[in-house]
Amino acid sequence: MVDHELTGAFAPVVTPFQADMTPDAPRFLAHCEWLLSHDVGLAPFGTNSEANSLDARERMALLDHLVDNGLDVRRMLPGTGCCSLPETVTLTRHAVERGCAGVLMLPPFFYKGVTDDGVYEYYARVIDQVNDARLRLYLYHIPALSGVPITLPVIERLRRDFPQTVVGIKDSSGDWNHLSAMLDAFPGFGIFPASESLVSRASAKGAKGCISATVNINAPMIGRLCREWADDAGAALQAQADVVRGIVQSFPMIPALKAVLASQREDPAWARVRSPLTQLTSDQHVRLHAQLAGCGFTLAG
Amino acid sequence: MVDHELTGAFAPVVTPFQADMTPDAPRFLAHCEWLLSHDVGLAPFGTNSEANSLDARERMALLDHLVDNGLDVRRMLPGTGCCSLPETVTLTRHAVERGCAGVLMLPPFFYKGVTDDGVYEYYARVIDQVNDARLRLYLYHIPALSGVPITLPVIERLRRDFPQTVVGIKDSSGDWNHLSAMLDAFPGFGIFPASESLVSRASAKGAKGCISATVNINAPMIGRLCREWADDAGAALQAQADVVRGIVQSFPMIPALKAVLASQREDPAWARVRSPLTQLTSDQHVRLHAQLAGCGFTLAG
Repeated sequence: MVDHELTGAFAPVVTPFQADMTPDAPRFLAHCEWLLSHDVGLAPFGTNSEANSLDARERMALLDHLVDNGLDVRRMLPGTGCCSLPETVTLTRHAVERGCAGVLMLPPFFYKGVTDDGVYEYYARVIDQVNDARLRLYLYHIPALSGVPITLPVIERLRRDFPQTVVGIKDSSGDWNHLSAMLDAFPGFGIFPASESLVSRASAKGAKGCISATVNINAPMIGRLCREWADDAGAALQAQADVVRGIVQSFPMIPALKAVLASQREDPAWARVRSPLTQLTSDQHVRLHAQLAGCGFTLAG
Repeated sequence: MVDHELTGAFAPVVTPFQADMTPDAPRFLAHCEWLLSHDVGLAPFGTNSEANSLDARERMALLDHLVDNGLDVRRMLPGTGCCSLPETVTLTRHAVERGCAGVLMLPPFFYKGVTDDGVYEYYARVIDQVNDARLRLYLYHIPALSGVPITLPVIERLRRDFPQTVVGIKDSSGDWNHLSAMLDAFPGFGIFPASESLVSRASAKGAKGCISATVNINAPMIGRLCREWADDAGAALQAQADVVRGIVQSFPMIPALKAVLASQREDPAWARVRSPLTQLTSDQHVRLHAQLAGCGFTLAG
């Protein structure tokens, strides 16, 4: 098993759009620079990036823009999992060739009720076809959206057969029992819960940090939590982060994150979302901002 | 409202693969020719085509192969709906430019819990961006796999705003009450149930035929049923078709269809499926064939 290198907080980087709803590369770059400046990593093209609303060319162009501008590839974990194996291979190969530290890979998510053998075979075929010793693959377990769970037996087989390659997982199940079972079963595996609310509990059992949507708007606090959860101030930090998380996730997550970013950046362009998502209503916008202000959360940049 | 022109049985054409698991264009063409020779239409790149396991380039190349070989575009209804709007626009524009009679379009299916406004906006934006008066769009309602229902209010808005373009729907809900409500609400709309088992009941209320997976292996019978359901022999024909359907759908559908085609064509290559799907087990294979033979279904070509 290789040493797992990625730790701390990662942002599934939200994707800004221009007025014509094409991706906005300059705003994307600026946001990524801001995230890195707060010592959190980049997980672009995740669920909260609207990755599945982008096509392969758009995704590769945005990643190229980050790498071409010198951002630290050792802190990059782009999402590359699509429904189709050839598209997943294309995106994964591109990320590896650009030097990214790892990729975060959804299972193919259209067909439901697929077997463990089918999920295993899919990942095995992707690895075989990418055929690059530099590949570090993080599985992405998000059954509520993918409909395709990555079960413990699948993880075990993949780790056994590809020990240098399959090095971690993002767990978006939101299920502590599941997360805890993984941490027990796979010590040393690069396990990241999808919410900062689980950082203290999960890190105490060996989790490596978190990959959480709210890092986009709360990077300093969550970055600190991932570093300092075990310190004296850890419990207070966890409680603070939980309050912000609780507020944001009571709204539609992606439009809510973008509304807050629009406020933090004083830039309404950030509020744009691609169909089928829709922006917050005015009422939601006002309530979200009032609740965040009420808990002392800074809505400045 | 334009006159709806597509009627009868359509096959969501299963996609054959070569030994290296790339699409097998010659076998695909031969199968499409066989289907057309039995007077059923082609709905390539549907759920049972493993469309979402193909990338955009593979889909366009296969469609080009059919059109370049002179197959009748007036009987073609390719699937073009992807998660991302730009990819959907690319595939739809290609199908329209190749002269296809219509396209069958999934809603974007990764995000769940999206609003009716979001689904409407997505389709409206696709239509605006394709920007071609020749486009004839059939919605594809398959909530069990997409997780995104196309509700009656969305259909009503799309028909009102794009009366020349949004001309029909495939209903894979499997829910007679839903299908019946659509037939009542939208007389003249091109409504196709996804199973031949609903042909008699639905056609009596104005449905136009069916778009059904089993057409791939049972084209003569289902084609006849769609033409003759109202005749004296209709009830017997419906009952016969129902028996075959019942058997096939008690197995994993796509591998089962391909196993039967492998037998009908005496060509084991047909049994291949792309990951994450897996072939039938030997046990399933034997049981499927025994049950079909037992009801007098021909396993010859």
